[in-house]
Amino acid sequence: VPCPTHVAASEELPAGFRWSALAAGLKPDGALDVGLVVSERAGTVSAARFCNSGVLAAPVVVTRERCNLAALRAVIANSGNANAATGEAGIAQAARVQEAVAAALGVAVREVAVASTGVIGALLPGERIAACAGELAATLEGDAGNFAQAIRTTDSLEKHLELAVTLPAGGIVRLAAQCKGAGMISPRFATMLCFVETDASMAAESVDALLGAAVRRSFDRISVDGQLSTNDTVIMLASGASEVWIEPESDDERAFGEALDALLRALALRIVADGEGARRIGRVVVRGGGQEAVERVARAVADSPLVKTALYGSDPNWGRVAQAVGAALPGSAPLAFAIAIGGVAVARAGAGIPFETGALAAAVAADEVLYEIDLPGEGAEAELFFSDLGYEYVRINAEYTT
Amino acid sequence: VPCPTHVAASEELPAGFRWSALAAGLKPDGALDVGLVVSERAGTVSAARFCNSGVLAAPVVVTRERCNLAALRAVIANSGNANAATGEAGIAQAARVQEAVAAALGVAVREVAVASTGVIGALLPGERIAACAGELAATLEGDAGNFAQAIRTTDSLEKHLELAVTLPAGGIVRLAAQCKGAGMISPRFATMLCFVETDASMAAESVDALLGAAVRRSFDRISVDGQLSTNDTVIMLASGASEVWIEPESDDERAFGEALDALLRALALRIVADGEGARRIGRVVVRGGGQEAVERVARAVADSPLVKTALYGSDPNWGRVAQAVGAALPGSAPLAFAIAIGGVAVARAGAGIPFETGALAAAVAADEVLYEIDLPGEGAEAELFFSDLGYEYVRINAEYTT
Repeated sequence: VPCPTHVAASEELPAGFRWSALAAGLKPDGALDVGLVVSERAGTVSAARFCNSGVLAAPVVVTRERCNLAALRAVIANSGNANAATGEAGIAQAARVQEAVAAALGVAVREVAVASTGVIGALLPGERIAACAGELAATLEGDAGNFAQAIRTTDSLEKHLELAVTLPAGGIVRLAAQCKGAGMISPRFATMLCFVETDASMAAESVDALLGAAVRRSFDRISVDGQLSTNDTVIMLASGASEVWIEPESDDERAFGEALDALLRALALRIVADGEGARRIGRVVVRGGGQEAVERVARAVADSPLVKTALYGSDPNWGRVAQAVGAALPGSAPLAFAIAIGGVAVARAGAGIPFETGALAAAVAADEVLYEIDLPGEGAEAELFFSDLGYEYVRINAEYTT
Repeated sequence: VPCPTHVAASEELPAGFRWSALAAGLKPDGALDVGLVVSERAGTVSAARFCNSGVLAAPVVVTRERCNLAALRAVIANSGNANAATGEAGIAQAARVQEAVAAALGVAVREVAVASTGVIGALLPGERIAACAGELAATLEGDAGNFAQAIRTTDSLEKHLELAVTLPAGGIVRLAAQCKGAGMISPRFATMLCFVETDASMAAESVDALLGAAVRRSFDRISVDGQLSTNDTVIMLASGASEVWIEPESDDERAFGEALDALLRALALRIVADGEGARRIGRVVVRGGGQEAVERVARAVADSPLVKTALYGSDPNWGRVAQAVGAALPGSAPLAFAIAIGGVAVARAGAGIPFETGALAAAVAADEVLYEIDLPGEGAEAELFFSDLGYEYVRINAEYTT
């Protein structure tokens, strides 16, 4: 993901935020598993996005129903237990955590979001986490590292980034995010948690619009295993502590939106690169005459276990891409598709064409493999990033037990 | 699959058929890769079903467009090359094979179906197969074993069955099928080839209706990897050589239909059991108020790599089943689903319930694991059989190369 020139890596975190983390015993190995992020400023604005599964985790329900999503001050997040498929009891546990954190911070309950990730179907020990609220509040610090650790599950790569954004009008703001996700990652939202902080001073409407656009271009465009989660949550907080105001619909807002877009795309790509057991990244770009068709084909290629195992094995078997294209558009035969892999054209007008096998072999052995598919017509395009499927995915998921 | 009492395993193949096979060099290891099945009787009736991929293989196109599907006499099938995504050149090669076989057998071109399976995107060497037509015709024999070998690709289990069917009116007919399939197996047709022969004397309309019903309950209800193929073909031939007439809409026809149903369900289950690298079979039964919803949930569970890896690892993680249910029905939260695994109820009213962990651990370690899911409402039901996902699937598919 190319980074715009007005965006640079930053040593400094956004002003006005503090983080803490501790081990509450949710992870069997005793690692950090509960984290808290807090904005110190009254007047902080926010926005949130969630997955749309029919089986929504209790923390998602509680945050959606009991919070003012435009004016959050804090997020309490845990790993090791998703608190999903836990019914009313799960909602009560999530609410208890929310209330304890609000009391410990001295803010309103509706200002505290809750998020969970981990095993589905086990009731969250909310009492235990609630009992940690005081310690979490007392140990808040200016470093997000432990917080980022605490939200990890099967992640092997770190997923936090800190940026400085220079706005056209001359102001400089900080932007940071801590993210987790490696499996159960898919469409219409990747299965992940992401918490974004900025010290820009913004309208809640700006945060909401920019976050929505950036999520659509990042976490909505990746697939590790095609599996929609129950817990996906992205929350962005803008503290205003920089005192740099970003006017809605200004050049500053556009520039800030570009930075947010680059940030979330970089983290989304890191999720794909960290796809459980992943060795390489696939990138599929489908062009053609109808948005629904190009979307379906891109999803079918990205989620095909045959394409994904070929990607893992550096197998130049482009026939599997053709198979996925055909499966996505039943009844459309004969379909005049074209396929290029890593820039090597392998099929045109629905049929294979001669190509240099050495060039294709080199393309499929690269760290990132680009699949370009052209369907009849023009004007629509869909892009997705996806993980390969290897032995490690099986090992992780055959042995990751309740 | 329970076998009706009027159906028994048979040593004898259906009368009036002959089979042959040889190695034409399509498989690199020199194994049998071309097979021919022929009905000796003029007046043979038939029916066929194909997949509906947007990328239909040349043999499917040729058989659909150039054959009289109700009056086929022979099928020429090859493994090692799918002749899919090969455009007009592929169609010409398939037609060349068809014509050579018709000439060698002395039947009309429209009486010879062609079928292929193997690598997608490589042009079929039709000339080479056509050159074998004479030898195939000269070596026809009363044994289907070599033919069944010749259509295999990554199959490790044999997939042919021979039955004797005792009809209510007292007649006895034979019914047999040779089948292949282990990967690229999915919905709206499993990715496979199946050739069915009977010596019953029937109307072509009966064959078509019974085959359609049996396919919907068998090859349409299995998933190895959720991948629709380009080449799926099921062809049934009824020679009439038994001289036992099956009257349309009679008890005899119903009894014969039950036998055909048992035959195809048994072969479909064998495909699932032979799913590439599979260790156990999953069976998902979803009940609820809407056919579309129960279908979607059953497919989502059967195709979920998280459910499949858990099945492989005997992992009692029912939360992944809940995740798949929710993903299949976005926006429906809160969803009052219930889940039982191997008869052990683990969730009710959308939430986990206490259960005996030893009983669940035993259930998920069985050779077949039953997942029962209840959604709100009643009257609709969907059943699917599916393979687990293990290291061998990765090995086979990461190393099965063009």
